[in-house]
Amino acid sequence: MTRADGRSDDELRPVRLTRGFQQHPAGSVLVEFGGTKVLCAASVTEGVPRWRKGSGLGWVTAEYAMLPSATHTRSDRESVKGRIGGRTHEISRLIGRSLRTSLDLAALGENTIALDCDVLQADGGTRTAAITGAYVALADAVTWLGARGRLADPKPLACQVAAVSVGVVDGRVRLDLPYEEDSRAEVDANVVATDTGTLIEVQSTGEGATFTRRTLDAMLDVALRGIADLVAAQSAALAAPLPGGPRE
Amino acid sequence: MTRADGRSDDELRPVRLTRGFQQHPAGSVLVEFGGTKVLCAASVTEGVPRWRKGSGLGWVTAEYAMLPSATHTRSDRESVKGRIGGRTHEISRLIGRSLRTSLDLAALGENTIALDCDVLQADGGTRTAAITGAYVALADAVTWLGARGRLADPKPLACQVAAVSVGVVDGRVRLDLPYEEDSRAEVDANVVATDTGTLIEVQSTGEGATFTRRTLDAMLDVALRGIADLVAAQSAALAAPLPGGPRE
Amino acid sequence: MTRADGRSDDELRPVRLTRGFQQHPAGSVLVEFGGTKVLCAASVTEGVPRWRKGSGLGWVTAEYAMLPSATHTRSDRESVKGRIGGRTHEISRLIGRSLRTSLDLAALGENTIALDCDVLQADGGTRTAAITGAYVALADAVTWLGARGRLADPKPLACQVAAVSVGVVDGRVRLDLPYEEDSRAEVDANVVATDTGTLIEVQSTGEGATFTRRTLDAMLDVALRGIADLVAAQSAALAAPLPGGPRE
Amino acid sequence: MTRADGRSDDELRPVRLTRGFQQHPAGSVLVEFGGTKVLCAASVTEGVPRWRKGSGLGWVTAEYAMLPSATHTRSDRESVKGRIGGRTHEISRLIGRSLRTSLDLAALGENTIALDCDVLQADGGTRTAAITGAYVALADAVTWLGARGRLADPKPLACQVAAVSVGVVDGRVRLDLPYEEDSRAEVDANVVATDTGTLIEVQSTGEGATFTRRTLDAMLDVALRGIADLVAAQSAALAAPLPGGPRE
Amino acid sequence: MTRADGRSDDELRPVRLTRGFQQHPAGSVLVEFGGTKVLCAASVTEGVPRWRKGSGLGWVTAEYAMLPSATHTRSDRESVKGRIGGRTHEISRLIGRSLRTSLDLAALGENTIALDCDVLQADGGTRTAAITGAYVALADAVTWLGARGRLADPKPLACQVAAVSVGVVDGRVRLDLPYEEDSRAEVDANVVATDTGTLIEVQSTGEGATFTRRTLDAMLDVALRGIADLVAAQSAALAAPLPGGPRE
Amino acid sequence: MTRADGRSDDELRPVRLTRGFQQHPAGSVLVEFGGTKVLCAASVTEGVPRWRKGSGLGWVTAEYAMLPSATHTRSDRESVKGRIGGRTHEISRLIGRSLRTSLDLAALGENTIALDCDVLQADGGTRTAAITGAYVALADAVTWLGARGRLADPKPLACQVAAVSVGVVDGRVRLDLPYEEDSRAEVDANVVATDTGTLIEVQSTGEGATFTRRTLDAMLDVALRGIADLVAAQSAALAAPLPGGPRE
Repeated sequence: MTRADGRSDDELRPVRLTRGFQQHPAGSVLVEFGGTKVLCAASVTEGVPRWRKGSGLGWVTAEYAMLPSATHTRSDRESVKGRIGGRTHEISRLIGRSLRTSLDLAALGENTIALDCDVLQADGGTRTAAITGAYVALADAVTWLGARGRLADPKPLACQVAAVSVGVVDGRVRLDLPYEEDSRAEVDANVVATDTGTLIEVQSTGEGATFTRRTLDAMLDVALRGIADLVAAQSAALAAPLPGGPRE
Repeated sequence: MTRADGRSDDELRPVRLTRGFQQHPAGSVLVEFGGTKVLCAASVTEGVPRWRKGSGLGWVTAEYAMLPSATHTRSDRESVKGRIGGRTHEISRLIGRSLRTSLDLAALGENTIALDCDVLQADGGTRTAAITGAYVALADAVTWLGARGRLADPKPLACQVAAVSVGVVDGRVRLDLPYEEDSRAEVDANVVATDTGTLIEVQSTGEGATFTRRTLDAMLDVALRGIADLVAAQSAALAAPLPGGPRE
Repeated sequence: MTRADGRSDDELRPVRLTRGFQQHPAGSVLVEFGGTKVLCAASVTEGVPRWRKGSGLGWVTAEYAMLPSATHTRSDRESVKGRIGGRTHEISRLIGRSLRTSLDLAALGENTIALDCDVLQADGGTRTAAITGAYVALADAVTWLGARGRLADPKPLACQVAAVSVGVVDGRVRLDLPYEEDSRAEVDANVVATDTGTLIEVQSTGEGATFTRRTLDAMLDVALRGIADLVAAQSAALAAPLPGGPRE
Repeated sequence: MTRADGRSDDELRPVRLTRGFQQHPAGSVLVEFGGTKVLCAASVTEGVPRWRKGSGLGWVTAEYAMLPSATHTRSDRESVKGRIGGRTHEISRLIGRSLRTSLDLAALGENTIALDCDVLQADGGTRTAAITGAYVALADAVTWLGARGRLADPKPLACQVAAVSVGVVDGRVRLDLPYEEDSRAEVDANVVATDTGTLIEVQSTGEGATFTRRTLDAMLDVALRGIADLVAAQSAALAAPLPGGPRE
Repeated sequence: MTRADGRSDDELRPVRLTRGFQQHPAGSVLVEFGGTKVLCAASVTEGVPRWRKGSGLGWVTAEYAMLPSATHTRSDRESVKGRIGGRTHEISRLIGRSLRTSLDLAALGENTIALDCDVLQADGGTRTAAITGAYVALADAVTWLGARGRLADPKPLACQVAAVSVGVVDGRVRLDLPYEEDSRAEVDANVVATDTGTLIEVQSTGEGATFTRRTLDAMLDVALRGIADLVAAQSAALAAPLPGGPRE
Repeated sequence: MTRADGRSDDELRPVRLTRGFQQHPAGSVLVEFGGTKVLCAASVTEGVPRWRKGSGLGWVTAEYAMLPSATHTRSDRESVKGRIGGRTHEISRLIGRSLRTSLDLAALGENTIALDCDVLQADGGTRTAAITGAYVALADAVTWLGARGRLADPKPLACQVAAVSVGVVDGRVRLDLPYEEDSRAEVDANVVATDTGTLIEVQSTGEGATFTRRTLDAMLDVALRGIADLVAAQSAALAAPLPGGPRE
């Protein structure tokens, strides 16, 4: 019983991390989990929001969005509708929370990093791809700040952060669901974890179905193995020189 | 090392479920988890949203909101701001998903039940109290529909649903966090489960901290024991006659 | 020719004022006019809006809203619609104007009191119940400020304020209309007055009908007698000790 | 003690009603109460809003607005702010209610008349000028419908409607307040009445002051005499031929 | 082959510029191009927007809008819809750009002039009438500032600005299109130019058709001759004394 | 006097058209004008908007937007601001108008094509790149429809459409301005034309400067030569097989 794309149940789709995709932001990464493509940009601003001024702490925000043409059927533009949907809000908040955990905000100093995760093509797992790519963009932005002597402390990154989806499809626990599996999964989980395998966020949902703790355990086993692979991919991408040389 | 309110780590706050709190909706329950008070109403409309017409299936939606005066410091009214915040969206979606799981939507027939969960007083755990109370309001609305012969099948409730928060505070796993604990918790989880102990949703988050699988396990142990008690409280409340007699 | 609920034409519905309903705001009162239940909270903030800074004067604002489940048929949530309706605006402004009249704003000092009137159950006369309850919440907030030495002058309350509806139903002038009468009234008036019987606001409307000055006079006679009873109920409520003791 | 503009206390400002001001709407009247100038248009649409379809009844709506350049200090445009303010809502509702009273909606048949009252210049009393002018525009629109055989009954106008402001300024009851008086009035009332002197709406407000029934009576006396004069002005304007001849 | 209104192809409609139409703004002009009537007001505020503070430069903004009753069929109010349409945005920006070109912003000093162009009646060419009228209102506002010694330099007006529409209708190049021609034009252009015939803006569009450079040339020839006439009309209007004498 | 990037005054930046960039829309093209990168997608829906139903005619709409990370300094997201800015509106309308001209809407049949132009990186000329790329995406969508037999007539494309910017910088007429030139241009024009050199739209603006007809002529000469090159690039791109083979 193999999957439609030929993968085994606990196998990731091909992962690609392209650094330096855009020229303006301090960090810019195109992340691909198979057909899912998310452009992750980390833009730096001096200073922090008003409520945080004088604290000595930095700040990281995140905004997630999807191009109308990213989905199978064209979706309406939220700017045209004049309001952001619940799903968008939810994912933006998850990305922000997850990435803030990777950072020592005191070491960052009073700088703000805005993480923009724009989905260019959606094929399941866009939020987990976004977190995985955003970490790399964030790392590049931190390097950029360091090169300019703008960090309060030279090593603000406390840990590496990556995320993956996992679910129960056709009664089997499967890793990194594409849209075709995600849309009919009985249980669906997103797991965010660090390079040492500790957890940052677990969101496991059974809409129209329930699940046992044993299933949750099996999903976490598979997810954490997948995250270890994603962490390795991040490390490899960051070990290479930034395409085009350092940003001015 | 006891808690500020004298509870042991795995003890719920006093739970109260007052049915028939309002006279207009088919189900109306005031749920209290200690100082947290949420008014849960289940309003019935004949028919379903357009995209669902002719399917023979019913629909359940949920909207969560907080009175400005519910919080320690007055919060701005979302209607005045002209937009709903991310947190509100997120919780509304969680309540809807959780309660839909309790119901056989084919048995409900083409009826829509709107669950309104309005927080009158907030002291931590408002979303879990809302889910726990909304189940009772939903059960009353189903009875109301049944009494009028408007169900496609007499027993649409597939399982009982309740929820509780759990977290790590001062290094200890604790159940049902009040605001004072919630605001300084290292890890914070919300667990939704059924009367048989199977899971519907697990959301576990460490903002500015990470957690191990062992901690997650300990949190789930405590949460599921708490949910068993909440389920018992729901059953007891529903076993009593509806105050004021059946709704006309 | 008696009324459906057995009252005489110039009789109020049973009035109940429950102080200390919520624990966070400086004043919190649940007011009931029969089946109409409004939660009135008075929240204190230090300082005043920018346009008033340095004037030495305080400020009082009011916001009125209705829970979706408060009405016979569920009403849509204004936060979800993204805009506040004309009726809501109108009533919020009326409450603010009326209560500001009760107060010497110089004596209040540069403090702002926000009055939130949230209708938990609607059965006619919600705006007049809101004004009547908001006065009691405001009085508790003023006491709270006084106990902390934050008033510019110890006695900012200039007069007591209460309000009642009156209308012509079945050709008869009737006091305090429930929904069943209000919805078919030929003329409908809301009267706000003080404890000495002077007027603060009179709004008398005949939609689809006109009325004579004689009818207006008869309505005012009945309304002012009703307001005298409401003022007595307010005084009695305020004479009792605050349930749960003074707020910290 | 005369008024700044030399009028006696119970005297209207010069009133001018210019019919046929615009060429597109079925009725279009520029009304002037001294320096207050309001353009009142009555636009006819076949059919009624969905909730009224098949009732055989017509409908009348009203929208009030102010040009940014109409006021002493330029005011922000509500379309740019993206929301309509409470005052605008309130006045629009008042105009609609008042004018609907003048009309037998069954005789109107299933037609909708939209009354747009746009203030070109504001000098106090804009809402009462709007009602007075809108009646004339409505009468022209009804004539226009009659000439095309589109009325269910040939005489839908049940009565004539006009309105005026009145207030207490410098301790004296005064009619038709210009901005200079309105802004410092102790009591302020708007009265809408018919050509036979019966009342449609009375709104009397004392912000920061209270008033006696005797003052209310004095204000009504003066207002009703003013309305009689306005009714005469309306009749005179309507008796003249429509400038430019009947609308095509 | 004459035009429906009897004009020759290169003839303007009758132009009327009425200064001093409103009493509050520093400049207020009713401009008429045949049946098109636009009220142009120039309101002065001391100071400039935050991003321009301390620059020594003034600022000019423009807002264009249409009364609902201005068009053949009533159009919806943008304030009620809660958002400004693309066309409105586009025209507001064009007016602002065009008028800023007429002014030496350093000579204006740190003053802001808001140009409000409200269409009272629309019959084609509303944006070009607005620009032509707004120049005259702006000139009056500059005179008003000069009379109060509030200009940094006594002559801030660098050139005169006027605009006209031109198009291809029935295969012929025609000047100043009324609605009847505009709605069926194959090509449609708006030209903004100065009193010396240099260009400020050319916008030429063929929706559903293309046009040659030769046609563009012919349109520009006709448009510039029309603009010379409009400039003369502006000069004549400004040469006359301000009706009612100088503004206080 | 060469340009910063070494081009001659009438030379385009390197142009790249990558078809099949996304897998879901019927047409998807990444267009690059030097550092400007715009993703143009053409999504097909069966049917047309309500106001066009039964006409037999198709419809084409366009929406332009910019990623926050596309610009030198991060720009705010319009979905978060809750409204679309004037510039966005204006460009969306220009793209829609221009592309509708390329198409015989009767031949298209009752199909709607939505053109989404999302700027991934901005370096001047985003709107002209968008039009040029959108034409290629539209051509692919038309082919896609034809392959499914869903066109009313097999050849709906009436002409090829491309666009380029041109301006006066440092006193010289220059083609295809990058941001560095665009931001200090004295005159700035956007020209849309067909493969036969006829014009669709000319927008020429001098903010804070005026320009002569001679300058306009010189700009048009240069622009039309540039457009001829862009048309050739489009033809070459469309002559190649669609990468990845025809879309299912």
